[in-house]
Amino acid sequence: MRIELVNTGTELCIGDVINTNAAWIGQRMAALGLEVARQTIVPDGGAVREAIAEAAARSDVVLVSGGLGPTNDDVTRESAADLLGLELRQDAAVTSHLDAYFSKRGKPVTSATLRQAMVPAGAQVLMNPFGTAPGLYFPAQLGAARGWKAHLFLLPGPPRELKPMVENEVEPRLRALLPDGESRRVLYLRLTGIGESDIVEAVEKQLEAVPRLELGYCIGKGDVDVRLAGPQETVDAGARIVRERLGEFILSEDRRVIEEVVVHALAARGEWLATAESCTGGAIANRVTDVSGSSAVFGHGLVTYANEAKQKHLGVPADLIETHGAVSAEVARAMAEGCLAASGADHALAVTGIAGPAGGTEEKPVGTVWVALASKGCETAARRFFYPGARDRFKLLTSQAALEMLRRRLHGLPLPG
Amino acid sequence: MRIELVNTGTELCIGDVINTNAAWIGQRMAALGLEVARQTIVPDGGAVREAIAEAAARSDVVLVSGGLGPTNDDVTRESAADLLGLELRQDAAVTSHLDAYFSKRGKPVTSATLRQAMVPAGAQVLMNPFGTAPGLYFPAQLGAARGWKAHLFLLPGPPRELKPMVENEVEPRLRALLPDGESRRVLYLRLTGIGESDIVEAVEKQLEAVPRLELGYCIGKGDVDVRLAGPQETVDAGARIVRERLGEFILSEDRRVIEEVVVHALAARGEWLATAESCTGGAIANRVTDVSGSSAVFGHGLVTYANEAKQKHLGVPADLIETHGAVSAEVARAMAEGCLAASGADHALAVTGIAGPAGGTEEKPVGTVWVALASKGCETAARRFFYPGARDRFKLLTSQAALEMLRRRLHGLPLPG
Repeated sequence: MRIELVNTGTELCIGDVINTNAAWIGQRMAALGLEVARQTIVPDGGAVREAIAEAAARSDVVLVSGGLGPTNDDVTRESAADLLGLELRQDAAVTSHLDAYFSKRGKPVTSATLRQAMVPAGAQVLMNPFGTAPGLYFPAQLGAARGWKAHLFLLPGPPRELKPMVENEVEPRLRALLPDGESRRVLYLRLTGIGESDIVEAVEKQLEAVPRLELGYCIGKGDVDVRLAGPQETVDAGARIVRERLGEFILSEDRRVIEEVVVHALAARGEWLATAESCTGGAIANRVTDVSGSSAVFGHGLVTYANEAKQKHLGVPADLIETHGAVSAEVARAMAEGCLAASGADHALAVTGIAGPAGGTEEKPVGTVWVALASKGCETAARRFFYPGARDRFKLLTSQAALEMLRRRLHGLPLPG
Repeated sequence: MRIELVNTGTELCIGDVINTNAAWIGQRMAALGLEVARQTIVPDGGAVREAIAEAAARSDVVLVSGGLGPTNDDVTRESAADLLGLELRQDAAVTSHLDAYFSKRGKPVTSATLRQAMVPAGAQVLMNPFGTAPGLYFPAQLGAARGWKAHLFLLPGPPRELKPMVENEVEPRLRALLPDGESRRVLYLRLTGIGESDIVEAVEKQLEAVPRLELGYCIGKGDVDVRLAGPQETVDAGARIVRERLGEFILSEDRRVIEEVVVHALAARGEWLATAESCTGGAIANRVTDVSGSSAVFGHGLVTYANEAKQKHLGVPADLIETHGAVSAEVARAMAEGCLAASGADHALAVTGIAGPAGGTEEKPVGTVWVALASKGCETAARRFFYPGARDRFKLLTSQAALEMLRRRLHGLPLPG
């Protein structure tokens, strides 16, 4: 089954908006076993009709986003109706959705707004609980008289409206069109602390021996997703292999990132985390506090770029810094232990390293970093990592490694060698 | 002049990579006065040839990215040569670039690599200092015998290779093709602390009266760019209007973000910043330390989510928190002053608020936040902001507002009312 996207919007063409919808839809379709054969992006206006017609002539399914709103340059609905030769009629359900939407916000329903309630005869309405413009589905047979062969979906442009509509309205209809679509499952096993090539080395041969299992990898920010797709039993068989051979690296099976996993694990245990960051400059604290509910597990964070700050807030002895250098296992350990004592938390993560671009030496090049984890009643652990490269990437990978040390401790797993 | 993009790469179609190149090129073209009329994205392989041919039939200029590498599914170079009927010949300059590139890395030049040195007869090589595959430019007349009318550029896919090539090789050639292209200038005035509609209200009428001035707005992360384009004198006249009426809101005229502006201003004055963050959870420290060289101006950061941390590290009296609540002007001021004293810095920013989604009250709803700035020898200022909405957006806008208070103090501007 060949599938194409048409994303409409002048803002996409002039670069005011990055087209994240296209990538997201591409992933969702890949999870269904469908590869998007082409994406076409056109500005609002007349080019939309042309792009839909071309895509429909080439493909079995066309997903169009954008141009369903109330303004004059929103022409997607009318373009599709015209191409399929369908008359537009005011739809009662959509009209009452619009009435409710606007009355809740104390605004009148204007005639421009009501354009969004016009539905081409025979098209199915895809309700939009997160906005005003509904989506529309035109089964291929609607245009049969005009030689039309494609299933056509019109979707709103804003991601927060489009994404739930794809998941709840489009995907079930595509499953119904696909052979085996109904029984198809997709599982994402998210791994961290291990590179893609080591994952491949460890499991690919065995996974490829599972009949009908589709396998994919996607490198994320500090983690790697192993995507398993196929019938339920097949996916289960694949997952067993990955869990058996790489279980300790599996961060989540529900696409949670490490800061979510760690905050949830701390909350479940009723434990607190504190942080003392030098070169990561607050990146760990920032990630942890991105998680809703983190205030129940995180109370004290310190960014001790300066050596005096390490001494003052963490009680790191000046001569320890002098003897071993600020970037050392000894200082990292002292920072973590000082942070644990100063905060009264159950766990303390400390980081000291050289983010660069300046400050490296031959012995300790840019990218060198020590991470220490102190926990009540455990021996303090310190590990050295090396992440040369751009500053933002250094901060990302170092904060990932630190959170991974904590995740392992919380789950009773061995810390990385 | 009509311009189209063709981005090639299976990774774009299956959503493994977000197409940031398309948005970036769209912005660069808009700056030249060109609107991208269509973007076509196709997987590696045979679809590339078809997409280039279609785009060239519709447009004056076609920019193609990706598919220039050494592997079998990299077919862009060969597709273009075939479409224009040009023979491929090994190019001496590219060959020696490849030799130098690989010998520097201690790797052999393979025959697959050498495919990248094959240049269609008559095409101009666009050297790639940041990678192996050169770009290629086919002036329209090269294909005249086949009725070809488009200027065709082939560019590498990786952004760090593509961007400098567009700026240094493609844009000068496009300027030469455009009427007035050579004298055209673009200036971005980046504003913060003021919304787009207030900017429009303040300057749009006057700017529209400047002959030949092209005007655009682009909303960034906590800031807004006013884009002025046209001949030099015209852009200068427009910039004078914005500077005169909105000068205090202009953050940079060189696209620097506020953390860069603040770090550079602190460095120029030889001054230090410290931070005490509650609800932003390290976001300010994280932004400041994203700037290279920030270790010279930032030494102490505290993330005091917990009230005990506010007391212990910042000396905020418990009864002050009890009397006014943790989210109050009084506590924000005490945090900033305590941070200034504890760190010995010249300036201290403190933040206390309710990021949500939980924790709001009727009097202090989610999104309420107090920011205080204490500086040596100045009265401590506290300001209330209100940013309801998602947690990450709250953190972004609050950290922006805090850094803006500091920027204004460093530049001797009045703090926001």
